Amino acid sequence: MQKVFNRVAIFGVGLIGGSFALALKKSVAVKQVVGVGRSQASLEVAKQLGIIDHIATSIEEAVTGADLILIAAPVAQTESILRSIQPFLQAQTIVTDAGSTKADVVAAARRALGDRIAQFVPAHPIAGRELNGPQAALVDLYVGKKAVITRLPENAEDDVASVAWAWQQCGAIIHYLQPEQHDAVFAAVSHLPHLLAYALVDDIARKPHADTLFQYAASGFRDFTRIAGSSPEMWRDITLANRVAMLEELDSYMARLAELRAYLVQADSAGIESVYSRAQQARHNWISAIEAAEKQHREGGD
Amino acid sequence: MQKVFNRVAIFGVGLIGGSFALALKKSVAVKQVVGVGRSQASLEVAKQLGIIDHIATSIEEAVTGADLILIAAPVAQTESILRSIQPFLQAQTIVTDAGSTKADVVAAARRALGDRIAQFVPAHPIAGRELNGPQAALVDLYVGKKAVITRLPENAEDDVASVAWAWQQCGAIIHYLQPEQHDAVFAAVSHLPHLLAYALVDDIARKPHADTLFQYAASGFRDFTRIAGSSPEMWRDITLANRVAMLEELDSYMARLAELRAYLVQADSAGIESVYSRAQQARHNWISAIEAAEKQHREGGD
Repeated sequence: MQKVFNRVAIFGVGLIGGSFALALKKSVAVKQVVGVGRSQASLEVAKQLGIIDHIATSIEEAVTGADLILIAAPVAQTESILRSIQPFLQAQTIVTDAGSTKADVVAAARRALGDRIAQFVPAHPIAGRELNGPQAALVDLYVGKKAVITRLPENAEDDVASVAWAWQQCGAIIHYLQPEQHDAVFAAVSHLPHLLAYALVDDIARKPHADTLFQYAASGFRDFTRIAGSSPEMWRDITLANRVAMLEELDSYMARLAELRAYLVQADSAGIESVYSRAQQARHNWISAIEAAEKQHREGGD
Repeated sequence: MQKVFNRVAIFGVGLIGGSFALALKKSVAVKQVVGVGRSQASLEVAKQLGIIDHIATSIEEAVTGADLILIAAPVAQTESILRSIQPFLQAQTIVTDAGSTKADVVAAARRALGDRIAQFVPAHPIAGRELNGPQAALVDLYVGKKAVITRLPENAEDDVASVAWAWQQCGAIIHYLQPEQHDAVFAAVSHLPHLLAYALVDDIARKPHADTLFQYAASGFRDFTRIAGSSPEMWRDITLANRVAMLEELDSYMARLAELRAYLVQADSAGIESVYSRAQQARHNWISAIEAAEKQHREGGD
């Protein structure tokens, strides 16, 4: 495993890519960071903020000589970015991504990279904010967070280790899942909640008395809908990319709502309380487990 | 309007009643606070924490001589508490409550108090935490928050002013709504979100692979489900008390989910993005309005 990257190229220098660059630089894990992206303005901001050292003037220039390429753009762009990289990809370069879905990204990578697929190590850091762009990047965004690597059968052990090492330099804890397993898990605990939050805000916004309703919305509503402040483009792509798993989770959730609706119609006090109590207990157990893990992590265990 | 309460009696010295007591004491708006409740242990804790000065040994003792009585118990208990108070209620005493629903509370008060109904000024402070009990009480829980008074036609102007003054001493901003209007608004922006958050956690907790799912749940899930950490008993009561308005909101929301489900089935990118974009924009506008209001408030405006 190499201990310093000479050159890391980042496609998409926003919250995710920018935070990765800042953290690698802070831990002196990289000598030079090159930025590539659709928006020249964002690249200029990233350079001013010290996130990148250099703005690539072409894909060829960005890719040539890179030890590691991170794709940190909305997942629907992964295939076209990989296709643009492919002609210039050198044998020693590892390509990874930070996409929130993995099965579609792997399929896109197989199409775009062909017999170079072994060089692509898919990954997903479990961290985010409801803000976007290089201005939102944080050096400690990944500290104590999980980074899931969905390694491919073709990947070399050393390449997987290099990607893991990079995320560890950012403070992340490495987990391994299969791509399909990853997508099923995150459909339930991340992608569906985003859809539900967007749906609630939109539902209220479309009512004739929306202004009055928003006037009385308070901190509970604010936290519940925080994720509805996230990038619509990014989450549209995730929703489409993972729509089969999301449909399964949505149907399960809508069945739960139908059950609660029946309790409301029947004024079934015990039924309502059973759902609320189980949920409160499950959440309490989950928070306790998180806090115990964080404590162990702070004290130097894993 | 009186400027100091000689004696305030609080039925239910938990988060809501305890924070009210702490804030009144801090602003020297009360000489003595008396606590009443189902749990002797909670009353002892409240006394040790300086929330109350005295634990009432009977309802008669609590009520006699009180200028103001606050009922801060789960809403389903309001009627039985008011019935227990009624025989001892003196003409100069104002009774108020902090319940999250108002139409049912007003109906309960009319049944329990009969021709003393003019003495009951219903209210609802819009503040909370997902923690319960006197240990959770905060002196600044209500600072900058709204307190909604749903005054009755029978209420004397002075009594309404006294209740408003008490909440203002806690730092709250007074709003007035009709009880039914109040319940419709909070069904949409508070009660339904609680039901939705409980439903999601319960849905996940009941899956066979719940442990794996919770392991990968992160900060977005944590914020989305924070309100599912709230008291199941309290929220069961609110749900039942406001079930007609909640059913209306739930049906509206389920229709929105059905619309999104159709977009998923059809892989309708534009449809998904339209919902997500409208929601993000509406939430952005709402947050901007809140921040402007907070700024104005800090600078000494309304």
